Amino acid sequence: MKKQTYPKNAWYVAAMSEEVAGSKPLGRKICGESIAFYRSHGDEIAAVLDFCPHRGAALSLGYVEEGLLVCGYHGLKMGADGKTKEMPLQRVQGFPCMKSYAVEERYGFIWVWPGDQSKANKEDIPHLEWAVSPEWAYGGGLFHINCDYRLMIDNLMDLTHETYVHASSIGQKEIDESPVFTTVEGDKVLTSRYMENIMAPPFWKAALRGNGLADDVPVDRWQICRFSPPSHVMIDVGVAHAGHGGFDAANEYRAGSTVVDFITPETETSIWYFWGMARNFKPNDQALTDAIQEGQGKIFTEDLEVLERQQENLLAFPDYDLLKLDIDAGGVQARRIIDRIIAEEGAEQKTTTSSAQKSAPLQTISF
Amino acid sequence: MKKQTYPKNAWYVAAMSEEVAGSKPLGRKICGESIAFYRSHGDEIAAVLDFCPHRGAALSLGYVEEGLLVCGYHGLKMGADGKTKEMPLQRVQGFPCMKSYAVEERYGFIWVWPGDQSKANKEDIPHLEWAVSPEWAYGGGLFHINCDYRLMIDNLMDLTHETYVHASSIGQKEIDESPVFTTVEGDKVLTSRYMENIMAPPFWKAALRGNGLADDVPVDRWQICRFSPPSHVMIDVGVAHAGHGGFDAANEYRAGSTVVDFITPETETSIWYFWGMARNFKPNDQALTDAIQEGQGKIFTEDLEVLERQQENLLAFPDYDLLKLDIDAGGVQARRIIDRIIAEEGAEQKTTTSSAQKSAPLQTISF
Amino acid sequence: MKKQTYPKNAWYVAAMSEEVAGSKPLGRKICGESIAFYRSHGDEIAAVLDFCPHRGAALSLGYVEEGLLVCGYHGLKMGADGKTKEMPLQRVQGFPCMKSYAVEERYGFIWVWPGDQSKANKEDIPHLEWAVSPEWAYGGGLFHINCDYRLMIDNLMDLTHETYVHASSIGQKEIDESPVFTTVEGDKVLTSRYMENIMAPPFWKAALRGNGLADDVPVDRWQICRFSPPSHVMIDVGVAHAGHGGFDAANEYRAGSTVVDFITPETETSIWYFWGMARNFKPNDQALTDAIQEGQGKIFTEDLEVLERQQENLLAFPDYDLLKLDIDAGGVQARRIIDRIIAEEGAEQKTTTSSAQKSAPLQTISF
Repeated sequence: MKKQTYPKNAWYVAAMSEEVAGSKPLGRKICGESIAFYRSHGDEIAAVLDFCPHRGAALSLGYVEEGLLVCGYHGLKMGADGKTKEMPLQRVQGFPCMKSYAVEERYGFIWVWPGDQSKANKEDIPHLEWAVSPEWAYGGGLFHINCDYRLMIDNLMDLTHETYVHASSIGQKEIDESPVFTTVEGDKVLTSRYMENIMAPPFWKAALRGNGLADDVPVDRWQICRFSPPSHVMIDVGVAHAGHGGFDAANEYRAGSTVVDFITPETETSIWYFWGMARNFKPNDQALTDAIQEGQGKIFTEDLEVLERQQENLLAFPDYDLLKLDIDAGGVQARRIIDRIIAEEGAEQKTTTSSAQKSAPLQTISF
Repeated sequence: MKKQTYPKNAWYVAAMSEEVAGSKPLGRKICGESIAFYRSHGDEIAAVLDFCPHRGAALSLGYVEEGLLVCGYHGLKMGADGKTKEMPLQRVQGFPCMKSYAVEERYGFIWVWPGDQSKANKEDIPHLEWAVSPEWAYGGGLFHINCDYRLMIDNLMDLTHETYVHASSIGQKEIDESPVFTTVEGDKVLTSRYMENIMAPPFWKAALRGNGLADDVPVDRWQICRFSPPSHVMIDVGVAHAGHGGFDAANEYRAGSTVVDFITPETETSIWYFWGMARNFKPNDQALTDAIQEGQGKIFTEDLEVLERQQENLLAFPDYDLLKLDIDAGGVQARRIIDRIIAEEGAEQKTTTSSAQKSAPLQTISF
Repeated sequence: MKKQTYPKNAWYVAAMSEEVAGSKPLGRKICGESIAFYRSHGDEIAAVLDFCPHRGAALSLGYVEEGLLVCGYHGLKMGADGKTKEMPLQRVQGFPCMKSYAVEERYGFIWVWPGDQSKANKEDIPHLEWAVSPEWAYGGGLFHINCDYRLMIDNLMDLTHETYVHASSIGQKEIDESPVFTTVEGDKVLTSRYMENIMAPPFWKAALRGNGLADDVPVDRWQICRFSPPSHVMIDVGVAHAGHGGFDAANEYRAGSTVVDFITPETETSIWYFWGMARNFKPNDQALTDAIQEGQGKIFTEDLEVLERQQENLLAFPDYDLLKLDIDAGGVQARRIIDRIIAEEGAEQKTTTSSAQKSAPLQTISF
């Protein structure tokens, strides 16, 4: 059996809140688990295996009624705990309890823990200041990409590629002429690059104008990439008029934002990529938010073919030893942390689940 | 090797008569066998392996000439018995005899026996009264669906799903509030459900009107599903004004019909689904036939995604033990009969074909 | 492991010259090798493994700058010899040397040697008189077809199929009523067929008119198919007014041309098929060239479904022993030559590469 490449006992972003609306469930595969997300009593989010215990129908094709997920095939009513609550003319107490998932709606996203629910702790969902503060605005989107999620982490922890992949928007020659610095603190990796006294590329000129600043003067530019497990990458990016402190410049001299990346494995070789940008200038300017979102969407689309073809190449040469240069240090360190977490998870699993049913969709049988 | 999931020594519907017309053959895979169907001398239907003995071209890309199937690549002329009859400038006596199939055109369908031709008996093709009596009209169609044929048998032997999958047409809450009764007689399974003194759902209101009857009065409704091997399901359905005998009511009080389902495996996980409806009221009203056919086509389309997603789920959890509730008894009993027939077929094969060539497309070599 | 079905130490046509233009590389798989073709210094063609040694990106998504292939991901600059020449802020001397390929632009085509570069000899590229002489005109195109390349060789070495596959253009009954003659000389196979005193089919009537000749008189027609390894088939075809010498008739009585076929394996079951027609009458009549090219394109399209369905059939019956009739002799002899070449190549490889890395994309590591 192939070695699992992602931790399962971790919080992943599974959906944007608006994707699960009203009585319509959302079926989505996360870390190899087919999950039906739906809004239970009081709109609370719930997540169960997308598999009806009756005949295996996809529960996500059904609908929600009185807080229960009704199978659209024969009307079995599933509860958020994986237990069947009702079925017309049937006694359901003996029905097998299906797998349910720890799930939490927070910051406009639906977070899921695809592994062992008993280990899930909602406190571990990272705090996102930009999502709760009125000083910040956020816009983003979702892509499905056919690549190992770690290729996207590599991509985001080494922004050298902006010069090549995004040459006409955020790329500029000065990026790959500037060294990067990578540090590791516990489970976090930070890679940064600073470029001083350069001219801003088109995207950042527009951002300066968006913040009411001159765009034809030299700027200091920064890129500070922050990885945290399992696969979140937050990147502080921006420019400030040169000589006013760069990243630390006062708001009247700078246009900065945080690139938000939640990279969620669908399978070993495909991802749900939640991207966005949070900014703390002119947070109430919705037209600006829309313009940035559209621009970012176009720019990030440029990565898709690069990543999918890279994935094909790596599948064709599985034994090739990729180079690990200084610019790759962010991704390399992130992978080390991931590998350690997977190893710990595996060790833990071995000691606790030796007698459990591994491949069946059941959690427990309750009569 | 995977266990075969369908009997091969059985009569299956392979096509509607009009699909094999003029000099154009039809290539279709039935129970894993690639078959070229064509009209031989006197329009008689013939069926041979869709594989030219010369170079393996698909014979179904060719054409019929003087009762022979001409290969569209190099002109080999194949006979209905699998023997090459002619080829330009060639002596064909030594050409290998290819597999041919017992085939019969009856009731507007082309029936094929994909297994051992010597065991085929045309008397075993079921009698279809509605197809030969002037008191009946018939309309139907063909779907290709990616699911195990037994999932479609389950679907049709448990009409509870009408409440959910077909909520806006033939579904109604009273269906799944009424118990079903299942009986087995030899190789036949019968599942029935009767609902008394209810209001008819939209499809049946239209049928009542189609038969010149009031549609706003209470009715008695029936569903009587009849499975016969290998995979035919005929379902008596209908409504009658309440209190006039239901299924047994006189024609002036009822609108009834037989849902016709021939479920033919293409592969282990895909089917050719021939569906239709036969009715014995106003048989000469072609506009009514057309309206019913269109309505039924729309309704039956609603099953496709349900079945294909169910199939995906079952492939992902091959060991999950599906529940077998009272409503599932029809499908469960049908599968038992199928399993017994497959086992018998396998036992028979073992004793008779131990020395035969199993994977090659040849029947015999005749010089 | 499956036995390789094509020689790799051979010259194949990989592209038409115009497919690799300016600074844009072309990525194409040839004999299972993913290759990036690009124009290096002075427009000279170069070919390297389509795999960046840095992180495995597809080099063909990048661009050419100052004769080097720049990876579009992080800016690594690859040389035609597979060695990395530069990368921003990096010392590249220790980077692994990737596989590069012997490649040559000649006759309007790009030729590649997908195997061991050290064995490549540009003298072995066949001489194509029609491509260099002002007395000839040429037009052609490229198809991608999902079939074993040998099925296309069979197709072209037995033109009997014109009667059936191309019935309305170049086919006629007299073809398959005329015997073929096949001879082998060293590594070359020649199959010929002559038809005397017949009426020309539509395509050849048009060609006669194109050459200013009457099209309503009897003609002598010829088809002379010439196979040379690995998979080139040149076919002399044409008609001459009857009784003037046929193939040897003077130009004032004939319309002849050479069908050009370069059949390049992409994988074991797919090909790049370069087809065209060279003629030595009215070579400067571009409108005639265009008309012939369009006509040939339509005719050759008729082969696609035949070949792809034949391939599916042969995959379903891998052990079926195809018939080898006289008309098949050309393809049969060509396969014998191919088999011998593959066997020799395999034997050679065994003695020389026992210690080499077989699956990795590296040639050598040079520090």
